[in-house]
Amino acid sequence: MEFLRKEFGERFIEDGVTARLYVRDASFMEFSESIAGVVFPVDEEEVVKLVRWAARNKVPLFPQGSATSLSGNASATAKGVVVSFEKMDKVEVDPVDGVAVVGPGVRLEELNVELARYGLFFPVDPGSVKSATVGGAIANGAGGMRGAKYGTMKDWVLGLRVVTGRGDLLRVGCRTYKCRNGYDLVRLFVGSEGTLGLVTEAILKLAPVPESAVAVLAYYDDLETLVEDVVRVRAGRLWPLFAEFLDAPTSAVVGLESRNALFLGVDVNGGAEERALRRLESLVRGEVAQRALDWGNAMKLLEPRRRLFYGQISTAQRDGGVLVIEDVAVPISKLPEAVRGLKKLAERHGLPLLLGGHIGDGNLHPATWYRRGEGPGRVEKFLRDMAELVVKLNGTVSAEHGIGVLKKDLIKMELGEEALNYMRELKRVFDPYNILNPGKIL
Amino acid sequence: MEFLRKEFGERFIEDGVTARLYVRDASFMEFSESIAGVVFPVDEEEVVKLVRWAARNKVPLFPQGSATSLSGNASATAKGVVVSFEKMDKVEVDPVDGVAVVGPGVRLEELNVELARYGLFFPVDPGSVKSATVGGAIANGAGGMRGAKYGTMKDWVLGLRVVTGRGDLLRVGCRTYKCRNGYDLVRLFVGSEGTLGLVTEAILKLAPVPESAVAVLAYYDDLETLVEDVVRVRAGRLWPLFAEFLDAPTSAVVGLESRNALFLGVDVNGGAEERALRRLESLVRGEVAQRALDWGNAMKLLEPRRRLFYGQISTAQRDGGVLVIEDVAVPISKLPEAVRGLKKLAERHGLPLLLGGHIGDGNLHPATWYRRGEGPGRVEKFLRDMAELVVKLNGTVSAEHGIGVLKKDLIKMELGEEALNYMRELKRVFDPYNILNPGKIL
Repeated sequence: MEFLRKEFGERFIEDGVTARLYVRDASFMEFSESIAGVVFPVDEEEVVKLVRWAARNKVPLFPQGSATSLSGNASATAKGVVVSFEKMDKVEVDPVDGVAVVGPGVRLEELNVELARYGLFFPVDPGSVKSATVGGAIANGAGGMRGAKYGTMKDWVLGLRVVTGRGDLLRVGCRTYKCRNGYDLVRLFVGSEGTLGLVTEAILKLAPVPESAVAVLAYYDDLETLVEDVVRVRAGRLWPLFAEFLDAPTSAVVGLESRNALFLGVDVNGGAEERALRRLESLVRGEVAQRALDWGNAMKLLEPRRRLFYGQISTAQRDGGVLVIEDVAVPISKLPEAVRGLKKLAERHGLPLLLGGHIGDGNLHPATWYRRGEGPGRVEKFLRDMAELVVKLNGTVSAEHGIGVLKKDLIKMELGEEALNYMRELKRVFDPYNILNPGKIL
Repeated sequence: MEFLRKEFGERFIEDGVTARLYVRDASFMEFSESIAGVVFPVDEEEVVKLVRWAARNKVPLFPQGSATSLSGNASATAKGVVVSFEKMDKVEVDPVDGVAVVGPGVRLEELNVELARYGLFFPVDPGSVKSATVGGAIANGAGGMRGAKYGTMKDWVLGLRVVTGRGDLLRVGCRTYKCRNGYDLVRLFVGSEGTLGLVTEAILKLAPVPESAVAVLAYYDDLETLVEDVVRVRAGRLWPLFAEFLDAPTSAVVGLESRNALFLGVDVNGGAEERALRRLESLVRGEVAQRALDWGNAMKLLEPRRRLFYGQISTAQRDGGVLVIEDVAVPISKLPEAVRGLKKLAERHGLPLLLGGHIGDGNLHPATWYRRGEGPGRVEKFLRDMAELVVKLNGTVSAEHGIGVLKKDLIKMELGEEALNYMRELKRVFDPYNILNPGKIL
């Protein structure tokens, strides 16, 4: 650690109490009792030096943004060094090129405040958008509310500067929207959870803020009609900006009526609001309880949905429980079957269940909890059954939260050993000493 | 070859005259005098058997769709076997899930005909869209006219079934829009030009056909204003569906006035056309010569731009020349400088130059030619200078045509040896015997 003391001075924290704050992430689980310290690099050169030192000395490095991961992606798993990127927070917006060049420590929300000056925005909108950093969102391949229309991080990162586990600085991708310079390494790093390289700079693609939007909040007695309506809207050539749902008990938790709720928004041209809302209402067969006719009100209409996470946490806490939030996706046609199946499984395991998610892209976030005294055993069995159900329905056990530590067993059920073996070989190419976020994904 | 005769029967062609038709692609270059034959698999099982046989016997396999590559990606480079995917042309559309599951041999145009029944489309629109196949578009990471808004193939492939050079069948990605099941191997295969694996099935993401569109064709005396206007439109919160340009001599070649021409289209909601066109005209400072107020007419307005390739070919042929079409991109802010620089370089080398491209994403297709008797020497020098200019301007030597055989030197100038070495190691992971499309990219 002498090297870190000398090289980083006050930007290396060894004090156990402070360092302990960096051990775990929002998954609330602890995988290592302690770490050797936290280091706060300020530039790329320092990151290169750090990784080369770690490679020589076989010291595990745990990259961290704001540690909002729910799968343990940002937790330390051994007595290594946490690398906090909070000081690398450069933002350069180029409205002509339509890109932002940013440091990994920039928060998505801060970026969007800056972009608003140019009529631009960065569309990826995870639940943690207020605190999540660009580096964390890249590592995690973050998704969120606008996934059905705008996709996820993989669709918005054009280029990266990244330090591999061998200490090589690679510049991959382009500053231009189109880029075909060899293998697409950008997208190999996006979603790799910091296990292949540490991102020191990202070139992000930007979008113009839509001129306007319309939205409805509608209640449904049966889920099939709710799902069908999302499909009807798309077939009616309106492409939902968001299509979010909460089941009846979850709607009640966030302050709505205790019925299945659909939040459906469409971005439109200025002046086209009234006609678009009429079309939307003609396609939606639920009971429309709220309407929005501009961008601001459409975002406001969505607010109860944004309270889902807090609603889930507080409900679990009131019940003296430890919350476990899952993140699965199934093809949209299988959503009703998935919801019915999940409810049946929760019942069979005697577990509570709150259900909501991004219905426009088939992404569900089932939440359950266990009492502290009882331990997670029953929940773990439920999760394995859930994974089995989801894989059977042609879905995935991880839509946007990543694998981290917590879902390593589940991903095996989905992918099988052969695909994982190729991933292990890729890991060896970029990180032969296994120093970058070890214990994650594989 | 006994294995191929036995296994594929009449679907293995050894006859030299017929086989010769499959040696080269639309780059018009020949890198091998002959091949051992062409094989036409009909299903995945046959592809697996073929690759395992090739791996055991170290026989090079050259995958081919409709061979529209302009960089030699689809040409044979040795006396191996061309694998034509034309018989694997399954199309299954699921409008509820918003995906199509297709064989590699399906043509993009055919796919869109099928999708139109559901109000959906596949937005990637390369110049070769009428003949290009899904497999070829994936291998090549195809782009095209709608890149500035809809991106390229990498943004529209959700999942793949693919046979690696070891003969392993991998299922990568998902059928859902969000997918975080480990490393993003889908996007490693997209744009890898068939050098890492042979795609046997693809799950494609679909978009609703926009309700309507407006467009203008405007002429400009200076290029700076033309480029600025594209940026003004985006800053005005209209996101161009297409933004295409032709320089003055090229405009004349496709039948327009001999002035810089800008084709600018924006998709809009039904009913919003007139207001959107007024806004568009208020932002565009060139001389508006044509207007379109619906989707059909907007596509029609773009037609002269679609004649670019044929205009370039016939102009070169009239001049007794062999056409060379390039494919570079620079950040949009650097477009005027790039255009000026390219014109200067062409002049210095005494070469003709026709310039057009996708200005919305900074992608230029400079075309030049050499006389048959003269040989390509002068053009090659021009291309190296072009690459130097583009790299200096923070651009890329390959925006959407890929590397193939022809741009291997240029990509070295852009990426350097270190990044290429990582790519070589990735190649070894997936194709240790170097049997998949050898001689391409690396």
